[in-house]
Amino acid sequence: MCQLLGMNCNTPTDIVFSFTGFACRAGRTGEHVDGWGVAFFEGHGVRHFVDHQAALVSPVAELIRRYPIKSQNVVAHIRKATVGKVSLENCHPFVRELWGRYWVFAHNGDLKNYSPLLTGPYLPVGTTDSELAFCWMLQSLRERFPTRPAQAQLNEAVRELSAEISTHGTFNYMLSDGTALFAHCSTNLYYLVRQYPFTLAKLCDEDMSVDFASVTTPSDRIAMIVTEPLTNNEVWTRFQPGELKVFIDGLPVASSIHEFQLAV
Amino acid sequence: MCQLLGMNCNTPTDIVFSFTGFACRAGRTGEHVDGWGVAFFEGHGVRHFVDHQAALVSPVAELIRRYPIKSQNVVAHIRKATVGKVSLENCHPFVRELWGRYWVFAHNGDLKNYSPLLTGPYLPVGTTDSELAFCWMLQSLRERFPTRPAQAQLNEAVRELSAEISTHGTFNYMLSDGTALFAHCSTNLYYLVRQYPFTLAKLCDEDMSVDFASVTTPSDRIAMIVTEPLTNNEVWTRFQPGELKVFIDGLPVASSIHEFQLAV
Repeated sequence: MCQLLGMNCNTPTDIVFSFTGFACRAGRTGEHVDGWGVAFFEGHGVRHFVDHQAALVSPVAELIRRYPIKSQNVVAHIRKATVGKVSLENCHPFVRELWGRYWVFAHNGDLKNYSPLLTGPYLPVGTTDSELAFCWMLQSLRERFPTRPAQAQLNEAVRELSAEISTHGTFNYMLSDGTALFAHCSTNLYYLVRQYPFTLAKLCDEDMSVDFASVTTPSDRIAMIVTEPLTNNEVWTRFQPGELKVFIDGLPVASSIHEFQLAV
Repeated sequence: MCQLLGMNCNTPTDIVFSFTGFACRAGRTGEHVDGWGVAFFEGHGVRHFVDHQAALVSPVAELIRRYPIKSQNVVAHIRKATVGKVSLENCHPFVRELWGRYWVFAHNGDLKNYSPLLTGPYLPVGTTDSELAFCWMLQSLRERFPTRPAQAQLNEAVRELSAEISTHGTFNYMLSDGTALFAHCSTNLYYLVRQYPFTLAKLCDEDMSVDFASVTTPSDRIAMIVTEPLTNNEVWTRFQPGELKVFIDGLPVASSIHEFQLAV
């Protein structure tokens, strides 16, 4: 299994504090040492960093911990390999283009007996069930909509696709096109919104705290989404199984829960 | 205009020496300060770094200069903006997936009156003529071949597409799918092959030299391709206008020259 970290904000914000705690799970407080990756949206562009070394020792992860890249949508992943060998092409998040925008996707969980029909527009490069699911989701969205539909239609389509894939196993994931961050829970996912008045936050995984009041403005709003809470003095809200939440500008703007039954 | 740097090798090799000289052109020995990028293939995976800061001062470029990422195919680009604003989504190289492999593309030059019909599988995210040309090339390859054809067929198709786009202006570019590196020249492109017996090389843009005999094995073979020679004590071969060379395992394995006439 793996761990996921997502951030969605109303103003470009760096993720140095949260990534530092998260990266500790790649060898120190967790066993997720089979590669990692992170994607930062910056305007319509994406900075995409992947490495098959553990995030705790990777020189690229060291850069991320030190260089405050500011972004409104971030998706990060640390991997403990279950399906697919340890290699760069199997590191999440994956990136593809749809409707003239980049989409990024990272997944926690395993899908069983999952072999969707891929007709061509998106084919996996690596060997994970995760990239397969991502390719199928984008293919399905492309089939339904020639251009990006209204947000509500898009949310409903993503919900339906998530429900279908969830019948094959655990499908905790994060997906973003740089505007919205979709977070879907099968088993483990938590979120919180940091906003005025900001307070001090203390990491669970590292002896480190930050007083967000000193590094924010009153109008800032930041949603953090993660497979296990990152701080031990803030209130994290747990997702329901089968719940899809859509975050825009630092707020959960839509939420829906689908029934699902494992096919296995 | 911009500058391009490509490397194609028979064994994974780092590009620290050449990138160091190349990055000097982003502010010290050249004026290419409007962003930069580099893509490294590692197996089927790609490490893709882009930054809208100049490569000379970017913390991400600093990482590349220090961290010896080993790769068989590398494409790098430093940008002086002509068409398209300075932003992350306009930084080369661009990455897309075709036939289950990543493809990377970087371009030097300007295309005039260029508005190809894009039918959907690849749409530009940014606003450069370069990304437009890349999307059209991949769309055209996809239309011709449902899966990756034999190398000779692929070379011929890329040659035809290059000739067609060249009628719109200057089209120096590098394109790679991780196996082959295609380099096309309209105006400026040079290459050399480093192989046994290896010698000392001295950068033009920086007081730095390396004795490749001490960091290679006799079977290593490395082709370097660049818009302006990087070293002043090696023999660089200049491409002909309209020439496409295909590099595999550190050697130019195919070469063809097309006639072209500017449409403008």
